[in-house]
Amino acid sequence: MPTERERLDETRIRVTSTAVTIDAGQPIGVAVVGAGYWGPNLVRNFQGPPNFHLRWLCDLDLDRAQGLLGRYSTVRATDDFTVLLDDPEVHAVAIATPAGTHAQLAMAALRAGKHVLVEKPLASTCAEGRQLTAEAARRGLTLMCDHTYCYTPAVTRIREMLHAGDLGDVHYFDSVRINLGLVQRDIDVIWDLAPHDLSILDSILPPGVRPVAVSAHGVDPIGAGRPCVGYLTLQLTGGAIAHVHVNWLSPIKVRTTMVAGSKRTLVWDDLNPSQRLAVYDRGVDVTAPDELGLEERRDMLVSYRSGDMVAPALPEREALRAMVEEFARAIRTRTAALTDGRSGLRVLEILQAASASLAAGGATIPLTNLEETV
Amino acid sequence: MPTERERLDETRIRVTSTAVTIDAGQPIGVAVVGAGYWGPNLVRNFQGPPNFHLRWLCDLDLDRAQGLLGRYSTVRATDDFTVLLDDPEVHAVAIATPAGTHAQLAMAALRAGKHVLVEKPLASTCAEGRQLTAEAARRGLTLMCDHTYCYTPAVTRIREMLHAGDLGDVHYFDSVRINLGLVQRDIDVIWDLAPHDLSILDSILPPGVRPVAVSAHGVDPIGAGRPCVGYLTLQLTGGAIAHVHVNWLSPIKVRTTMVAGSKRTLVWDDLNPSQRLAVYDRGVDVTAPDELGLEERRDMLVSYRSGDMVAPALPEREALRAMVEEFARAIRTRTAALTDGRSGLRVLEILQAASASLAAGGATIPLTNLEETV
Amino acid sequence: MPTERERLDETRIRVTSTAVTIDAGQPIGVAVVGAGYWGPNLVRNFQGPPNFHLRWLCDLDLDRAQGLLGRYSTVRATDDFTVLLDDPEVHAVAIATPAGTHAQLAMAALRAGKHVLVEKPLASTCAEGRQLTAEAARRGLTLMCDHTYCYTPAVTRIREMLHAGDLGDVHYFDSVRINLGLVQRDIDVIWDLAPHDLSILDSILPPGVRPVAVSAHGVDPIGAGRPCVGYLTLQLTGGAIAHVHVNWLSPIKVRTTMVAGSKRTLVWDDLNPSQRLAVYDRGVDVTAPDELGLEERRDMLVSYRSGDMVAPALPEREALRAMVEEFARAIRTRTAALTDGRSGLRVLEILQAASASLAAGGATIPLTNLEETV
Amino acid sequence: MPTERERLDETRIRVTSTAVTIDAGQPIGVAVVGAGYWGPNLVRNFQGPPNFHLRWLCDLDLDRAQGLLGRYSTVRATDDFTVLLDDPEVHAVAIATPAGTHAQLAMAALRAGKHVLVEKPLASTCAEGRQLTAEAARRGLTLMCDHTYCYTPAVTRIREMLHAGDLGDVHYFDSVRINLGLVQRDIDVIWDLAPHDLSILDSILPPGVRPVAVSAHGVDPIGAGRPCVGYLTLQLTGGAIAHVHVNWLSPIKVRTTMVAGSKRTLVWDDLNPSQRLAVYDRGVDVTAPDELGLEERRDMLVSYRSGDMVAPALPEREALRAMVEEFARAIRTRTAALTDGRSGLRVLEILQAASASLAAGGATIPLTNLEETV
Repeated sequence: MPTERERLDETRIRVTSTAVTIDAGQPIGVAVVGAGYWGPNLVRNFQGPPNFHLRWLCDLDLDRAQGLLGRYSTVRATDDFTVLLDDPEVHAVAIATPAGTHAQLAMAALRAGKHVLVEKPLASTCAEGRQLTAEAARRGLTLMCDHTYCYTPAVTRIREMLHAGDLGDVHYFDSVRINLGLVQRDIDVIWDLAPHDLSILDSILPPGVRPVAVSAHGVDPIGAGRPCVGYLTLQLTGGAIAHVHVNWLSPIKVRTTMVAGSKRTLVWDDLNPSQRLAVYDRGVDVTAPDELGLEERRDMLVSYRSGDMVAPALPEREALRAMVEEFARAIRTRTAALTDGRSGLRVLEILQAASASLAAGGATIPLTNLEETV
Repeated sequence: MPTERERLDETRIRVTSTAVTIDAGQPIGVAVVGAGYWGPNLVRNFQGPPNFHLRWLCDLDLDRAQGLLGRYSTVRATDDFTVLLDDPEVHAVAIATPAGTHAQLAMAALRAGKHVLVEKPLASTCAEGRQLTAEAARRGLTLMCDHTYCYTPAVTRIREMLHAGDLGDVHYFDSVRINLGLVQRDIDVIWDLAPHDLSILDSILPPGVRPVAVSAHGVDPIGAGRPCVGYLTLQLTGGAIAHVHVNWLSPIKVRTTMVAGSKRTLVWDDLNPSQRLAVYDRGVDVTAPDELGLEERRDMLVSYRSGDMVAPALPEREALRAMVEEFARAIRTRTAALTDGRSGLRVLEILQAASASLAAGGATIPLTNLEETV
Repeated sequence: MPTERERLDETRIRVTSTAVTIDAGQPIGVAVVGAGYWGPNLVRNFQGPPNFHLRWLCDLDLDRAQGLLGRYSTVRATDDFTVLLDDPEVHAVAIATPAGTHAQLAMAALRAGKHVLVEKPLASTCAEGRQLTAEAARRGLTLMCDHTYCYTPAVTRIREMLHAGDLGDVHYFDSVRINLGLVQRDIDVIWDLAPHDLSILDSILPPGVRPVAVSAHGVDPIGAGRPCVGYLTLQLTGGAIAHVHVNWLSPIKVRTTMVAGSKRTLVWDDLNPSQRLAVYDRGVDVTAPDELGLEERRDMLVSYRSGDMVAPALPEREALRAMVEEFARAIRTRTAALTDGRSGLRVLEILQAASASLAAGGATIPLTNLEETV
Repeated sequence: MPTERERLDETRIRVTSTAVTIDAGQPIGVAVVGAGYWGPNLVRNFQGPPNFHLRWLCDLDLDRAQGLLGRYSTVRATDDFTVLLDDPEVHAVAIATPAGTHAQLAMAALRAGKHVLVEKPLASTCAEGRQLTAEAARRGLTLMCDHTYCYTPAVTRIREMLHAGDLGDVHYFDSVRINLGLVQRDIDVIWDLAPHDLSILDSILPPGVRPVAVSAHGVDPIGAGRPCVGYLTLQLTGGAIAHVHVNWLSPIKVRTTMVAGSKRTLVWDDLNPSQRLAVYDRGVDVTAPDELGLEERRDMLVSYRSGDMVAPALPEREALRAMVEEFARAIRTRTAALTDGRSGLRVLEILQAASASLAAGGATIPLTNLEETV
């Protein structure tokens, strides 16, 4: 039996089944939902660009929302989500609430005809995620996942280099994302932190290379009720490997990602602002006559390249600002955002497979590439 | 049918079945076998302390051996291994040859009544390793594995801290050992590099904590015929985890090991000579009433410690020198060395299980703790 | 003959010659002057704490002021400085304009009975600076210099350690503050950057230790019309030395300060958020019998301490927020701020002496300690 | 009245007034004097290359010399310096004794017809240094100063870049060489450490750029009887500046040199083996119409370059080995070594001027470029 909210949503479908047209010069009216950890960043970034008009900040805790806005703001606060849905000047909703509520809130907003930006992860299950992408597609609405890292100058450059073939074939991807993190109550460390690495991987891999299977290991040494340390291993098409170490219990903070290719290897250290990206022209080349069998590869020629390292100058740009601009671009042009719902769904499938692997003691779980079947 | 060498060895057993006594003031006569990558270090370190008299350097390539000794040395070079075995002034043999030859050479030396130091890994298989430890035990000879890192001031301190309970219960061990390494012809990257991490782990774990299962992943993206990038995950008794990343294809060199405990966590960065060891009094504590079920842990109390970091002053000491002194101590006192044959065997079992896991696509392989059954 | 502004100010003196009392529960009305590089930080920080009510943002460029406030703010913008002076609800003025205008604007504000916060440097000359401190003293108004670094958790801790004697006697202070900086049009690199180091030094030195002479060297290799690279050497009472390297032409950013004492030495690396402060228990001790002459010190005993390093946990706190709170505290309690006008004046005297030294080819210029003669 | 040694030397002049010819295929017979801190490095490096035959190690403490050679060496030890001078198979003498003895020993060796390698500094005074270079010139003997750093791959590359104009005009040179160093008994920290930086500067500066004046500051906060912390400022022709910070009392070790030019700036961090050299294409450009006066430069155009950084791959090579080979080359070709006596003399003049500046409270001391007047 449908809940009150669901009936409400059903009703709304009928009246707002298509995306409202927003004039070119008109700002996109936006409401932010969630005044917790990430909300303040969204509030700040939606207030900057002329592309948006921030109309509401919504949180179940009204005082928190008011406090975030402060004493000098003309933006309105509310604790009633339906107010946003009913406001015709709200064209888009940005959801930064606990992960477990993403799917329901996003679906309600879509059904109210709003474009939707959702914090990672897109939803709690692949099934929910598929419903969201289907709903957005049916209504011609923009559904976007806030994979913020994909909009950093570093990841943008990495994507360009990989797509241009500057690194050659992908050999491995190794990412470490550890620090003394907040032990979440609703999700484990893999669901909390790995979406960053998985969305980065999703966004940089050149066409034709993608994850095909996942194995995960994790432990909960402090009795938190869920893994606090996790290791993900992904097989990629073409024999490459991706590995992610996420950890809430590390006293040191590390945010380092290596992307190794047949030509070059790059190291991205997000905590080194003076040299975030280093591209190494160093590596190992193997030349073995094709006619040889594995046994005879003893006679192969191994050579080592010891070239320069280049740290490219990257533009100074806040990633969240670029993400917000991409949201506007997608809404106005009615084209897919870089991190659209389908990319959120691809990440979701890996997370769900990782949980299955964890439950099976690290067994390798194949990926079915759900989003292509939508 | 026994080979010529084996018959030779069999003969020798009868005449030198027990360890020769070496007087307290008398230097231990030693021969080094292998003038390749590691041999020079052994040659240098056996020449220093008065405990030893270096008598021979042996290599199949006599010119190489002569070249290593140089024009000013009185140490003799030979390409004939049996010369060492027949020399009564050689009490001990140090073997630094390719991994595949360790077992045969070590066994021949033991059967000739020599104390033996073997480079890691102890042997190519657990079966060989067990034969060596059994042979040494039967003859009352010292069999030691050159797990050099276990003799660094850093690992010594880590062992002391863990054994004294300074870190509390072990939560996780995470080690990264990557650089542009020599692609070995006879062993993969796990057999080449992971013995360092596994022997360190073996040497620091407090009594009662030990690996019980292994899972391994690896890839060979360059067509070298064997994995060049590897990830090892070990389950430890008590719910802790150990993880090792070894890699021959990294343009950057990393040698960082984290050992996390319930009280403190330490980070060992072997490439930072000014601050190799950092002990963090930071962490996450969880307090949940015992009577609660998992569901109710939502109400648990999570607290974060944000204490100081202490980088202890470590003595300046060459690890190899300490290892060589431990070899002398073990020979003279007829007691087990810190990294005796059995510790080499424990490492060997993990390596063999890792190979089995790799062959089985990352399946978890239980460890049977062979050395206790010897 | 007085200018129009000066007559205006003179008039105002008569009507607002003393500080207005602000009730305990009443926010301090504040106006920020200058919407350039630093103004946004002041605007943001005055909006946070309940201690203040931000009433105006003033800039000669009204659009710039409006743009900084954004579309959602209720704070008013103006390009008329006298509006602030005339507004009885403005109790305090924060000045973040070019250095050459500080003295005039601050004096006008003081004469209008406003408490004043000035960006560094306090003024362009010691004479101006003395007039400001005298005026503030006469009127019982708070005059404070925004030496922000003095309010960082790191400097706070350093001050505490030095005052408590934890480092022993001061041996040397060495500070490097270099990066690719904005080449200023009105001041050289020493006036631009060294106030940070000099105010830090001023704030941490224990009672009885202070600079007594200055020597400065600088060059302008790019033809900017003023030194872009500068070195300051200060003699301190007690035989210690302070040295500051400031540089606009460095492609790398360095913010490292060493404070060495007879017992311990600390290194503050402001660009290393995970380990800003490191306290080393290492050093050289010299023991020489007192009766010996210098010649005979050859027989002195030199010993080296090689102790641990401790990186203390520092609270996370924005320095500017703490500075703003100190401004409120000083106003409400009518007591001197940590970085009051006199500390600004002490810094100013060193800057002026440094300029004299530069003009004299690096000659040593004695300091007369002006602020004590006020 | 001449001392016994001097008369001895005078006698010897007559019999060995010219350099002995050494055949192309014949090793250069060499003796090392001094078995202290640096001697072991010379002993090791003279034993390697076929260009040399190490014949003697001489030290007043015979046991120390024997100990350094060890039990396995065929090199002879002696405590009698004249034995070397009398040995016709000794063609060259390498002097690694305390600084105060360099001049006398080197002169005796030259007068005995030996080629001479001296540790830095070349001598204790410019007068002595000039006598040495004159004596070597008169006899056609190689006199070389062991400025080891000049032979590192990093300095070699820096010299090549500066000479090729890759950095453009020199803007500044800034070097920091600090650590917890041995407090020397006979020389202060400037004479102990700055020769490294000064010889590097001497070796890399392009033709036409050289130091013209020196100012020095230093303190002795521990009562060691000589400065333990020193700062040197050098004016260079063309308006550039060089600055050197040397320090025995730093708990941290820093070895960083910046060389800034109009086109590029490089940073050499000798303690970062994975990235010793970084070349930054970043900087500030000023474009001001030539007809403008200084006043009008307010309207100048300042632009900032924000280009890539390149860390060039450097060959792996021991500097001391390269230095020893250069010694052989200079002897065999009878041409000047890169760091010949005259370069040692140039460094010496700066050291002597620095001492004069220290004695005069930091006054600027002009350099007369002694070596050109020889």
